[in-house]
Amino acid sequence: MSFLDRIRECNEHNLGNFQPLRIARQRLGWVRHDIAKRLADYPDVFECAKHDITLNTKLDSFQTRSGAVAPVLEALRDDGMIPAWRDELYPVATTYGARPLLQMERAAFPCLGLRAYGVHINGFVREGEHTKMWIARRALDKPTYPGMLDNMVAGGLPIGVGLRDNIIKECAEEAGIPEELAIRAVPTGAISYCKEVPEGLKPDLQFVCDLELPLGFEPQPVDGEVEAFYLWPIEQVMEVVANTNEFKFNCALVIIDFLVRRGFLSPGDIDYLEIVDGLRRPL
Amino acid sequence: MSFLDRIRECNEHNLGNFQPLRIARQRLGWVRHDIAKRLADYPDVFECAKHDITLNTKLDSFQTRSGAVAPVLEALRDDGMIPAWRDELYPVATTYGARPLLQMERAAFPCLGLRAYGVHINGFVREGEHTKMWIARRALDKPTYPGMLDNMVAGGLPIGVGLRDNIIKECAEEAGIPEELAIRAVPTGAISYCKEVPEGLKPDLQFVCDLELPLGFEPQPVDGEVEAFYLWPIEQVMEVVANTNEFKFNCALVIIDFLVRRGFLSPGDIDYLEIVDGLRRPL
Repeated sequence: MSFLDRIRECNEHNLGNFQPLRIARQRLGWVRHDIAKRLADYPDVFECAKHDITLNTKLDSFQTRSGAVAPVLEALRDDGMIPAWRDELYPVATTYGARPLLQMERAAFPCLGLRAYGVHINGFVREGEHTKMWIARRALDKPTYPGMLDNMVAGGLPIGVGLRDNIIKECAEEAGIPEELAIRAVPTGAISYCKEVPEGLKPDLQFVCDLELPLGFEPQPVDGEVEAFYLWPIEQVMEVVANTNEFKFNCALVIIDFLVRRGFLSPGDIDYLEIVDGLRRPL
Repeated sequence: MSFLDRIRECNEHNLGNFQPLRIARQRLGWVRHDIAKRLADYPDVFECAKHDITLNTKLDSFQTRSGAVAPVLEALRDDGMIPAWRDELYPVATTYGARPLLQMERAAFPCLGLRAYGVHINGFVREGEHTKMWIARRALDKPTYPGMLDNMVAGGLPIGVGLRDNIIKECAEEAGIPEELAIRAVPTGAISYCKEVPEGLKPDLQFVCDLELPLGFEPQPVDGEVEAFYLWPIEQVMEVVANTNEFKFNCALVIIDFLVRRGFLSPGDIDYLEIVDGLRRPL
Protein backbone atom coordinates (compact mmCIF):
# COMPACT_ATOMS: atom_id res chain seq x y z
CA MET A 1 0.00 0.00 0.00
CA SER A 2 1.30 3.43 -0.77
CA PHE A 3 -0.67 6.29 0.74
CA LEU A 4 2.51 8.27 0.28
CA ASP A 5 2.03 8.04 -3.50
CA ARG A 6 -1.32 9.81 -3.16
CA ILE A 7 0.29 12.53 -1.04
CA ARG A 8 3.10 12.96 -3.58
CA GLU A 9 0.58 13.27 -6.40
CA CYS A 10 -1.15 16.11 -4.54
CA ASN A 11 2.17 17.93 -4.33
CA GLU A 12 3.68 17.42 -7.76
CA HIS A 13 4.90 20.78 -8.99
CA ASN A 14 7.97 22.66 -10.03
CA LEU A 15 7.94 26.30 -8.93
CA GLY A 16 10.62 26.92 -11.55
CA ASN A 17 7.79 26.86 -14.08
CA PHE A 18 6.08 29.77 -12.31
CA GLN A 19 6.71 33.31 -11.26
CA PRO A 20 5.34 35.01 -8.15
CA LEU A 21 2.21 37.13 -8.34
CA ARG A 22 2.03 39.98 -5.85
CA ILE A 23 -1.24 41.55 -4.80
CA ALA A 24 -1.32 44.43 -2.30
CA ARG A 25 2.42 43.92 -1.63
CA GLN A 26 2.04 40.24 -0.77
CA ARG A 27 3.03 37.18 -2.75
CA LEU A 28 -0.29 35.45 -3.12
CA GLY A 29 -0.14 33.62 -6.44
CA TRP A 30 2.12 31.75 -8.85
CA VAL A 31 1.71 32.24 -12.60
CA ARG A 32 3.15 29.84 -15.18
CA HIS A 33 5.52 31.56 -17.63
CA ASP A 34 3.28 31.08 -20.69
CA ILE A 35 0.31 32.52 -18.81
CA ALA A 36 2.47 35.40 -17.58
CA LYS A 37 3.28 36.27 -21.20
CA ARG A 38 -0.43 36.52 -21.92
CA LEU A 39 -1.04 38.69 -18.84
CA ALA A 40 1.59 41.11 -20.17
CA ASP A 41 -1.00 42.13 -22.77
CA TYR A 42 -2.85 43.94 -19.96
CA PRO A 43 -0.22 46.24 -18.41
CA ASP A 44 -2.85 48.42 -16.74
CA VAL A 45 -3.86 45.40 -14.68
CA PHE A 46 -0.80 43.13 -14.44
CA GLU A 47 2.68 44.69 -14.29
CA CYS A 48 4.91 41.96 -15.66
CA ALA A 49 8.58 42.31 -14.74
CA LYS A 50 11.26 39.82 -15.72
CA HIS A 51 10.78 37.53 -12.73
CA ASP A 52 7.50 38.48 -11.19
CA ILE A 53 4.08 39.95 -11.72
CA THR A 54 2.37 42.62 -9.67
CA LEU A 55 -1.29 43.46 -9.70
CA ASN A 56 -1.19 47.16 -10.57
CA THR A 57 -0.84 48.94 -7.24
CA LYS A 58 -3.07 51.75 -8.50
CA LEU A 59 -5.86 49.23 -8.10
CA ASP A 60 -6.15 49.81 -4.39
CA SER A 61 -9.59 48.59 -3.39
CA PHE A 62 -11.67 45.43 -3.50
CA GLN A 63 -13.92 47.01 -6.13
CA THR A 64 -11.21 48.31 -8.44
CA ARG A 65 -9.15 45.13 -8.26
CA SER A 66 -12.14 42.87 -8.87
CA GLY A 67 -13.40 45.09 -11.70
CA ALA A 68 -10.04 45.23 -13.48
CA VAL A 69 -9.19 41.54 -13.23
CA ALA A 70 -12.56 40.20 -14.42
CA PRO A 71 -12.31 41.17 -18.12
CA VAL A 72 -8.72 39.86 -18.34
CA LEU A 73 -9.84 36.49 -17.03
CA GLU A 74 -12.74 36.47 -19.49
CA ALA A 75 -10.32 37.08 -22.34
CA LEU A 76 -8.15 34.19 -21.16
CA ARG A 77 -11.25 32.02 -20.90
CA ASP A 78 -12.16 32.92 -24.50
CA ASP A 79 -8.64 31.83 -25.49
CA GLY A 80 -9.31 28.44 -23.88
CA MET A 81 -6.83 29.04 -21.02
CA ILE A 82 -9.46 28.78 -18.28
CA PRO A 83 -11.64 25.71 -18.80
CA ALA A 84 -14.66 24.76 -16.68
CA TRP A 85 -15.77 28.36 -16.07
CA ARG A 86 -18.38 28.26 -13.30
CA ASP A 87 -19.69 31.79 -12.89
CA GLU A 88 -18.95 31.55 -9.17
CA LEU A 89 -16.98 34.22 -7.33
CA TYR A 90 -14.38 33.26 -4.74
CA PRO A 91 -12.49 35.62 -2.44
CA VAL A 92 -8.76 36.27 -2.78
CA ALA A 93 -7.25 37.01 0.64
CA THR A 94 -4.03 36.48 2.56
CA THR A 95 -5.70 33.67 4.50
CA TYR A 96 -9.13 32.23 5.17
CA GLY A 97 -11.32 34.75 6.94
CA ALA A 98 -9.05 37.71 6.22
CA ARG A 99 -10.58 40.70 4.42
CA PRO A 100 -10.78 39.81 0.70
CA LEU A 101 -8.50 41.86 -1.54
CA LEU A 102 -10.66 41.04 -4.56
CA GLN A 103 -13.17 38.50 -5.78
CA MET A 104 -12.83 36.54 -8.98
CA GLU A 105 -14.13 33.56 -10.92
CA ARG A 106 -13.51 30.26 -9.16
CA ALA A 107 -12.18 28.52 -12.27
CA ALA A 108 -9.43 31.14 -12.66
CA PHE A 109 -7.71 30.42 -9.34
CA PRO A 110 -5.29 27.81 -10.77
CA CYS A 111 -4.50 30.15 -13.68
CA LEU A 112 -3.12 32.72 -11.20
CA GLY A 113 -1.94 30.07 -8.72
CA LEU A 114 -4.06 31.51 -5.92
CA ARG A 115 -5.13 29.45 -2.92
CA ALA A 116 -8.77 28.40 -2.97
CA TYR A 117 -10.54 27.07 0.09
CA GLY A 118 -13.13 24.35 0.32
CA VAL A 119 -14.68 21.92 2.76
CA HIS A 120 -14.79 18.14 2.47
CA ILE A 121 -16.99 15.93 4.62
CA ASN A 122 -16.14 12.35 5.52
CA GLY A 123 -19.50 10.60 5.92
CA PHE A 124 -19.25 7.39 7.89
CA VAL A 125 -21.27 4.90 9.89
CA ARG A 126 -20.27 2.55 12.70
CA GLU A 127 -21.62 -0.91 13.22
CA GLY A 128 -20.10 -2.13 16.47
CA GLU A 129 -16.35 -2.20 15.86
CA HIS A 130 -16.72 -1.79 12.11
CA THR A 131 -16.51 1.53 10.26
CA LYS A 132 -17.94 2.10 6.81
CA MET A 133 -17.54 5.22 4.74
CA TRP A 134 -19.91 6.85 2.28
CA ILE A 135 -18.15 7.45 -1.03
CA ALA A 136 -19.51 9.57 -3.89
CA ARG A 137 -18.89 9.04 -7.58
CA ARG A 138 -18.78 12.41 -9.37
CA ALA A 139 -21.30 12.94 -12.13
CA LEU A 140 -20.06 11.90 -15.55
CA ASP A 141 -20.85 15.38 -16.92
CA LYS A 142 -19.14 17.35 -14.14
CA PRO A 143 -16.71 19.87 -15.69
CA THR A 144 -13.86 18.75 -13.43
CA TYR A 145 -12.77 15.18 -12.69
CA PRO A 146 -15.96 13.56 -14.06
CA GLY A 147 -16.70 10.03 -12.86
CA MET A 148 -13.97 10.00 -10.22
CA LEU A 149 -14.54 8.92 -6.63
CA ASP A 150 -15.04 11.69 -4.09
CA ASN A 151 -15.78 12.30 -0.43
CA MET A 152 -19.47 12.13 0.50
CA VAL A 153 -19.87 15.89 0.30
CA ALA A 154 -17.37 18.51 -0.83
CA GLY A 155 -17.51 22.05 -2.08
CA GLY A 156 -15.58 25.21 -2.57
CA LEU A 157 -16.11 28.21 -0.33
CA PRO A 158 -17.66 31.06 -2.33
CA ILE A 159 -17.46 34.63 -1.17
CA GLY A 160 -19.94 35.70 1.47
CA VAL A 161 -21.03 32.24 2.62
CA GLY A 162 -19.90 31.03 6.05
CA LEU A 163 -18.40 27.57 6.41
CA ARG A 164 -21.27 26.25 8.53
CA ASP A 165 -23.92 27.51 6.10
CA ASN A 166 -21.93 26.12 3.19
CA ILE A 167 -21.82 22.67 4.80
CA ILE A 168 -25.59 22.67 5.35
CA LYS A 169 -26.18 23.86 1.77
CA GLU A 170 -23.82 21.33 0.15
CA CYS A 171 -25.14 18.45 2.30
CA ALA A 172 -28.67 19.25 1.13
CA GLU A 173 -27.83 19.92 -2.53
CA GLU A 174 -25.32 17.17 -3.21
CA ALA A 175 -26.51 14.38 -0.95
CA GLY A 176 -30.02 15.09 0.31
CA ILE A 177 -28.78 15.26 3.91
CA PRO A 178 -31.27 17.19 6.06
CA GLU A 179 -30.05 20.11 8.14
CA GLU A 180 -30.61 18.29 11.44
CA LEU A 181 -28.02 15.71 10.37
CA ALA A 182 -25.70 18.12 8.55
CA ILE A 183 -25.19 20.26 11.66
CA ARG A 184 -23.65 17.24 13.39
CA ALA A 185 -20.61 17.52 11.08
CA VAL A 186 -17.56 17.98 13.32
CA PRO A 187 -14.68 20.13 12.05
CA THR A 188 -11.45 18.16 12.49
CA GLY A 189 -8.78 20.33 10.90
CA ALA A 190 -7.61 20.86 7.34
CA ILE A 191 -5.47 19.35 4.62
CA SER A 192 -3.44 21.36 2.13
CA TYR A 193 -1.30 20.64 -0.89
CA CYS A 194 0.21 22.23 -4.00
CA LYS A 195 -0.39 20.55 -7.34
CA GLU A 196 0.59 21.60 -10.83
CA VAL A 197 -2.32 21.10 -13.25
CA PRO A 198 -2.79 21.90 -16.94
CA GLU A 199 -4.60 25.12 -15.94
CA GLY A 200 -1.78 26.27 -13.64
CA LEU A 201 -1.18 25.64 -9.93
CA LYS A 202 -3.51 24.56 -7.12
CA PRO A 203 -2.01 25.51 -3.73
CA ASP A 204 -5.34 24.80 -2.04
CA LEU A 205 -6.63 24.10 1.43
CA GLN A 206 -9.63 22.01 2.32
CA PHE A 207 -11.26 22.15 5.72
CA VAL A 208 -12.20 18.65 6.84
CA CYS A 209 -15.30 17.56 8.76
CA ASP A 210 -16.42 14.14 9.93
CA LEU A 211 -20.13 13.39 9.87
CA GLU A 212 -21.26 10.17 11.53
CA LEU A 213 -24.55 9.12 9.97
CA PRO A 214 -27.18 6.83 11.46
CA LEU A 215 -27.22 3.25 10.20
CA GLY A 216 -29.89 3.05 7.55
CA PHE A 217 -29.64 6.68 6.37
CA GLU A 218 -28.67 6.84 2.71
CA PRO A 219 -27.40 9.98 0.99
CA GLN A 220 -29.17 10.65 -2.30
CA PRO A 221 -27.93 12.54 -5.38
CA VAL A 222 -30.06 15.68 -5.61
CA ASP A 223 -28.50 18.35 -7.83
CA GLY A 224 -26.86 16.09 -10.38
CA GLU A 225 -23.29 16.61 -9.17
CA VAL A 226 -23.09 13.02 -7.91
CA GLU A 227 -23.61 9.92 -10.02
CA ALA A 228 -24.03 7.51 -7.10
CA PHE A 229 -23.18 6.94 -3.43
CA TYR A 230 -21.54 3.77 -2.15
CA LEU A 231 -21.19 2.55 1.43
CA TRP A 232 -17.81 0.82 1.67
CA PRO A 233 -16.09 -0.96 4.55
CA ILE A 234 -13.14 1.19 5.61
CA GLU A 235 -10.77 -1.61 4.54
CA GLN A 236 -12.07 -1.30 0.97
CA VAL A 237 -11.67 2.47 1.06
CA MET A 238 -8.07 2.05 2.24
CA GLU A 239 -7.35 -0.48 -0.48
CA VAL A 240 -8.69 1.75 -3.26
CA VAL A 241 -6.95 4.89 -1.95
CA ALA A 242 -3.62 3.11 -1.53
CA ASN A 243 -3.58 1.19 -4.79
CA THR A 244 -5.49 3.19 -7.39
CA ASN A 245 -6.08 6.70 -8.70
CA GLU A 246 -9.86 6.31 -8.68
CA PHE A 247 -10.31 9.09 -6.13
CA LYS A 248 -9.97 12.71 -7.17
CA PHE A 249 -6.49 13.61 -5.90
CA ASN A 250 -7.40 15.81 -2.94
CA CYS A 251 -10.20 13.48 -1.76
CA ALA A 252 -7.59 10.77 -1.21
CA LEU A 253 -5.75 13.19 1.10
CA VAL A 254 -8.96 13.86 3.06
CA ILE A 255 -9.44 10.12 3.55
CA ILE A 256 -5.81 9.55 4.60
CA ASP A 257 -6.27 12.28 7.22
CA PHE A 258 -9.39 10.42 8.47
CA LEU A 259 -7.39 7.17 8.63
CA VAL A 260 -4.64 8.83 10.67
CA ARG A 261 -6.97 10.61 13.10
CA ARG A 262 -9.03 7.51 13.79
CA GLY A 263 -6.23 5.01 14.21
CA PHE A 264 -6.69 3.05 10.98
CA LEU A 265 -3.03 3.82 10.43
CA SER A 266 -0.59 3.51 13.28
CA PRO A 267 2.99 4.52 14.10
CA GLY A 268 4.20 1.01 13.34
CA ASP A 269 3.05 1.35 9.72
CA ILE A 270 5.66 2.08 7.12
CA ASP A 271 5.90 5.79 6.22
CA TYR A 272 3.61 6.78 9.12
CA LEU A 273 5.39 10.01 10.03
CA GLU A 274 5.97 10.94 6.41
CA ILE A 275 2.24 10.49 5.84
CA VAL A 276 1.33 12.55 8.91
CA ASP A 277 3.70 15.34 7.81
CA GLY A 278 2.39 15.16 4.25
CA LEU A 279 -1.21 16.04 5.04
CA ARG A 280 -0.53 19.74 5.28
CA ARG A 281 1.69 22.05 3.37
CA PRO A 282 2.33 25.62 4.49
CA LEU A 283 1.49 28.12 1.78
CA MET B 1 -7.72 32.98 24.34
CA SER B 2 -4.40 32.41 22.69
CA PHE B 3 -3.62 28.82 21.78
CA LEU B 4 -1.19 30.32 19.31
CA ASP B 5 0.93 31.57 22.22
CA ARG B 6 1.36 27.99 23.42
CA ILE B 7 2.38 26.89 19.91
CA ARG B 8 4.86 29.76 19.66
CA GLU B 9 6.39 28.83 23.02
CA CYS B 10 6.98 25.29 21.75
CA ASN B 11 8.88 26.71 18.80
CA GLU B 12 10.97 29.47 20.34
CA HIS B 13 14.50 29.07 19.07
CA ASN B 14 17.19 30.78 17.06
CA LEU B 15 19.20 28.38 14.93
CA GLY B 16 21.86 31.09 14.74
CA ASN B 17 22.84 29.98 18.25
CA PHE B 18 23.56 26.47 17.00
CA GLN B 19 25.67 24.62 14.50
CA PRO B 20 24.70 21.48 12.63
CA LEU B 21 25.80 18.08 13.91
CA ARG B 22 26.33 15.44 11.24
CA ILE B 23 26.17 11.73 11.97
CA ALA B 24 26.74 9.17 9.22
CA ARG B 25 26.67 11.95 6.60
CA GLN B 26 23.30 13.31 7.72
CA ARG B 27 22.46 16.47 9.63
CA LEU B 28 20.71 15.04 12.67
CA GLY B 29 21.48 17.44 15.50
CA TRP B 30 22.06 21.07 16.42
CA VAL B 31 24.72 21.99 18.98
CA ARG B 32 24.84 25.36 20.74
CA HIS B 33 28.13 27.18 20.18
CA ASP B 34 29.27 26.97 23.84
CA ILE B 35 28.56 23.24 23.90
CA ALA B 36 30.38 22.84 20.58
CA LYS B 37 33.48 24.38 22.15
CA ARG B 38 33.37 21.78 24.88
CA LEU B 39 32.94 18.94 22.34
CA ALA B 40 36.11 20.15 20.62
CA ASP B 41 38.01 18.68 23.60
CA TYR B 42 37.21 15.23 22.17
CA PRO B 43 38.48 15.36 18.56
CA ASP B 44 38.52 11.57 18.24
CA VAL B 45 34.77 11.63 18.71
CA PHE B 46 33.54 15.03 17.51
CA GLU B 47 35.29 16.73 14.60
CA CYS B 48 34.57 20.40 15.17
CA ALA B 49 34.99 22.59 12.10
CA LYS B 50 34.29 26.31 12.04
CA HIS B 51 30.59 26.01 11.26
CA ASP B 52 29.67 22.44 11.94
CA ILE B 53 30.41 19.30 13.87
CA THR B 54 30.76 15.79 12.53
CA LEU B 55 30.69 12.61 14.54
CA ASN B 56 34.03 11.06 13.59
CA THR B 57 33.31 9.05 10.45
CA LYS B 58 35.78 6.38 11.59
CA LEU B 59 33.08 5.47 14.08
CA ASP B 60 31.11 3.49 11.54
CA SER B 61 28.86 1.19 13.53
CA PHE B 62 26.14 1.36 16.18
CA GLN B 63 28.53 -0.14 18.72
CA THR B 64 31.52 2.11 18.04
CA ARG B 65 29.42 5.28 17.88
CA SER B 66 27.53 4.47 21.09
CA GLY B 67 30.71 3.48 22.87
CA ALA B 68 32.64 6.61 21.86
CA VAL B 69 29.88 9.12 22.63
CA ALA B 70 28.95 7.77 26.08
CA PRO B 71 32.09 8.89 28.00
CA VAL B 72 31.96 12.36 26.40
CA LEU B 73 28.39 12.82 27.57
CA GLU B 74 29.34 11.61 31.04
CA ALA B 75 32.09 14.22 31.17
CA LEU B 76 29.60 16.92 30.14
CA ARG B 77 27.20 15.67 32.80
CA ASP B 78 29.95 15.93 35.41
CA ASP B 79 30.48 19.54 34.27
CA GLY B 80 26.78 20.20 34.95
CA MET B 81 25.91 20.62 31.26
CA ILE B 82 23.46 17.70 31.19
CA PRO B 83 21.08 17.91 34.12
CA ALA B 84 18.42 15.33 34.98
CA TRP B 85 20.50 12.35 33.87
CA ARG B 86 18.16 9.35 33.71
CA ASP B 87 20.28 6.32 32.88
CA GLU B 88 17.89 5.53 30.03
CA LEU B 89 19.12 4.87 26.51
CA TYR B 90 17.28 6.31 23.51
CA PRO B 91 17.97 5.56 19.85
CA VAL B 92 19.42 8.14 17.45
CA ALA B 93 18.11 7.54 13.92
CA THR B 94 17.15 9.48 10.82
CA THR B 95 13.49 8.96 11.69
CA TYR B 96 11.30 6.88 13.99
CA GLY B 97 11.64 3.21 13.18
CA ALA B 98 14.76 3.61 11.06
CA ARG B 99 17.83 1.58 12.05
CA PRO B 100 19.46 3.37 15.01
CA LEU B 101 22.87 4.88 14.26
CA LEU B 102 23.73 4.87 17.96
CA GLN B 103 22.11 4.84 21.37
CA MET B 104 22.74 7.41 24.06
CA GLU B 105 21.47 8.78 27.35
CA ARG B 106 18.01 10.31 27.08
CA ALA B 107 18.94 13.46 29.01
CA ALA B 108 21.69 14.26 26.49
CA PHE B 109 19.40 14.63 23.47
CA PRO B 110 18.84 18.39 23.91
CA CYS B 111 22.59 18.89 24.46
CA LEU B 112 23.22 17.57 20.91
CA GLY B 113 19.88 18.89 19.55
CA LEU B 114 18.79 15.42 18.46
CA ARG B 115 15.14 14.55 17.93
CA ALA B 116 13.66 12.41 20.69
CA TYR B 117 10.37 10.59 20.29
CA GLY B 118 7.66 10.00 22.84
CA VAL B 119 3.99 9.18 23.13
CA HIS B 120 1.31 11.24 24.90
CA ILE B 121 -2.13 9.92 25.72
CA ASN B 122 -5.21 12.11 26.00
CA GLY B 123 -7.44 10.38 28.53
CA PHE B 124 -11.05 11.49 28.34
CA VAL B 125 -14.59 10.52 29.26
CA ARG B 126 -17.91 11.42 27.68
CA GLU B 127 -21.13 12.06 29.55
CA GLY B 128 -23.76 12.57 26.88
CA GLU B 129 -22.66 15.66 24.96
CA HIS B 130 -20.06 16.62 27.55
CA THR B 131 -16.38 15.74 27.33
CA LYS B 132 -14.06 15.73 30.31
CA MET B 133 -10.33 15.19 30.21
CA TRP B 134 -8.03 13.51 32.71
CA ILE B 135 -5.14 15.80 33.56
CA ALA B 136 -2.02 14.79 35.51
CA ARG B 137 0.05 16.97 37.77
CA ARG B 138 3.72 15.96 37.56
CA ALA B 139 5.37 14.88 40.80
CA LEU B 140 7.01 17.71 42.69
CA ASP B 141 10.30 15.80 42.75
CA LYS B 142 10.37 14.93 39.03
CA PRO B 143 13.72 16.00 37.53
CA THR B 144 12.02 17.86 34.65
CA TYR B 145 9.10 20.30 34.89
CA PRO B 146 8.10 19.29 38.46
CA GLY B 147 4.57 20.16 39.52
CA MET B 148 3.41 21.17 36.06
CA LEU B 149 0.23 19.91 34.45
CA ASP B 150 0.59 17.07 31.97
CA ASN B 151 -1.41 14.75 29.73
CA MET B 152 -2.88 11.72 31.53
CA VAL B 153 -0.01 9.49 30.44
CA ALA B 154 3.17 10.41 28.59
CA GLY B 155 6.57 8.90 28.13
CA GLY B 156 9.64 8.85 25.99
CA LEU B 157 10.36 5.97 23.64
CA PRO B 158 13.44 4.08 24.85
CA ILE B 159 15.43 1.87 22.52
CA GLY B 160 14.07 -1.61 21.90
CA VAL B 161 10.52 -1.03 23.19
CA GLY B 162 7.68 -0.88 20.66
CA LEU B 163 5.16 1.95 20.85
CA ARG B 164 2.27 -0.34 21.77
CA ASP B 165 4.21 -2.04 24.56
CA ASN B 166 5.39 1.33 25.78
CA ILE B 167 1.82 2.63 26.00
CA ILE B 168 0.72 -0.41 28.02
CA LYS B 169 3.75 -0.07 30.31
CA GLU B 170 3.36 3.69 30.89
CA CYS B 171 -0.41 3.39 31.42
CA ALA B 172 0.21 0.79 34.12
CA GLU B 173 3.20 2.49 35.77
CA GLU B 174 2.07 6.11 35.73
CA ALA B 175 -1.67 5.82 36.07
CA GLY B 176 -2.66 2.30 37.16
CA ILE B 177 -4.56 1.73 33.93
CA PRO B 178 -4.98 -2.00 33.30
CA GLU B 179 -3.87 -3.48 29.99
CA GLU B 180 -7.43 -4.23 28.85
CA LEU B 181 -8.15 -0.48 28.96
CA ALA B 182 -4.74 0.69 27.73
CA ILE B 183 -5.00 -1.30 24.51
CA ARG B 184 -8.04 0.78 23.57
CA ALA B 185 -5.77 3.82 23.08
CA VAL B 186 -6.21 4.98 19.48
CA PRO B 187 -3.22 6.49 17.65
CA THR B 188 -4.32 9.79 16.10
CA GLY B 189 -1.15 11.24 14.61
CA ALA B 190 1.72 13.24 16.03
CA ILE B 191 2.75 16.71 17.10
CA SER B 192 6.23 18.14 16.68
CA TYR B 193 8.04 21.31 17.62
CA CYS B 194 11.49 22.82 18.12
CA LYS B 195 12.22 24.57 21.41
CA GLU B 196 15.41 26.13 22.69
CA VAL B 197 15.98 25.18 26.34
CA PRO B 198 18.81 25.85 28.80
CA GLU B 199 20.24 22.39 28.01
CA GLY B 200 20.22 22.95 24.23
CA LEU B 201 17.51 22.29 21.64
CA LYS B 202 14.47 20.03 21.65
CA PRO B 203 13.31 19.31 18.05
CA ASP B 204 11.06 16.53 19.32
CA LEU B 205 8.09 14.58 18.10
CA GLN B 206 5.35 13.08 20.22
CA PHE B 207 2.99 10.46 18.93
CA VAL B 208 -0.53 11.18 20.14
CA CYS B 209 -3.19 8.69 21.25
CA ASP B 210 -6.71 9.21 22.53
CA LEU B 211 -7.99 6.85 25.20
CA GLU B 212 -11.67 7.09 26.10
CA LEU B 213 -12.14 5.79 29.61
CA PRO B 214 -15.32 4.46 31.18
CA LEU B 215 -17.19 6.84 33.46
CA GLY B 216 -16.20 5.99 36.99
CA PHE B 217 -12.70 4.72 36.20
CA GLU B 218 -10.07 6.78 37.97
CA PRO B 219 -6.38 6.73 37.06
CA GLN B 220 -4.15 6.36 40.11
CA PRO B 221 -0.56 7.48 40.64
CA VAL B 222 1.52 4.31 40.91
CA ASP B 223 5.23 4.92 40.35
CA GLY B 224 5.49 8.35 41.92
CA GLU B 225 5.83 10.27 38.62
CA VAL B 226 2.40 11.85 39.07
CA GLU B 227 1.30 13.94 42.06
CA ALA B 228 -2.43 13.76 41.30
CA PHE B 229 -5.00 13.26 38.56
CA TYR B 230 -7.87 15.67 37.90
CA LEU B 231 -10.98 15.17 35.77
CA TRP B 232 -11.75 18.53 34.18
CA PRO B 233 -14.54 19.63 31.85
CA ILE B 234 -13.00 20.28 28.43
CA GLU B 235 -13.93 23.97 28.75
CA GLN B 236 -11.73 24.24 31.83
CA VAL B 237 -8.87 22.49 30.04
CA MET B 238 -9.22 24.95 27.14
CA GLU B 239 -9.23 27.91 29.49
CA VAL B 240 -6.08 26.81 31.31
CA VAL B 241 -4.22 25.91 28.10
CA ALA B 242 -5.14 29.18 26.42
CA ASN B 243 -4.51 31.53 29.32
CA THR B 244 -1.76 30.06 31.47
CA ASN B 245 1.59 28.25 31.35
CA GLU B 246 0.52 25.64 33.88
CA PHE B 247 0.88 22.81 31.37
CA LYS B 248 4.32 21.53 30.43
CA PHE B 249 4.90 23.16 27.02
CA ASN B 250 4.47 20.14 24.76
CA CYS B 251 1.43 18.82 26.65
CA ALA B 252 -0.42 22.00 25.70
CA LEU B 253 0.30 21.18 22.05
CA VAL B 254 -1.08 17.65 22.49
CA ILE B 255 -4.28 19.10 23.94
CA ILE B 256 -4.64 21.70 21.19
CA ASP B 257 -4.35 18.87 18.64
CA PHE B 258 -7.16 17.04 20.51
CA LEU B 259 -9.29 20.20 20.42
CA VAL B 260 -8.79 20.57 16.66
CA ARG B 261 -9.46 16.92 15.82
CA ARG B 262 -12.62 16.77 17.90
CA GLY B 263 -14.20 20.03 16.82
CA PHE B 264 -13.72 22.00 20.04
CA LEU B 265 -12.07 24.55 17.78
CA SER B 266 -13.59 25.42 14.46
CA PRO B 267 -12.66 27.23 11.26
CA GLY B 268 -14.55 30.31 12.41
CA ASP B 269 -12.23 30.70 15.41
CA ILE B 270 -9.53 33.26 15.19
CA ASP B 271 -6.14 31.83 14.18
CA TYR B 272 -7.68 28.44 13.30
CA LEU B 273 -5.49 27.70 10.29
CA GLU B 274 -2.38 29.05 11.98
CA ILE B 275 -3.11 26.72 14.90
CA VAL B 276 -3.69 23.74 12.61
CA ASP B 277 -0.44 24.45 10.75
CA GLY B 278 1.42 24.98 14.02
CA LEU B 279 0.85 21.50 15.42
CA ARG B 280 3.61 19.95 13.38
CA ARG B 281 7.01 21.13 12.32
CA PRO B 282 9.09 19.26 9.77
CA LEU B 283 12.50 18.34 11.14
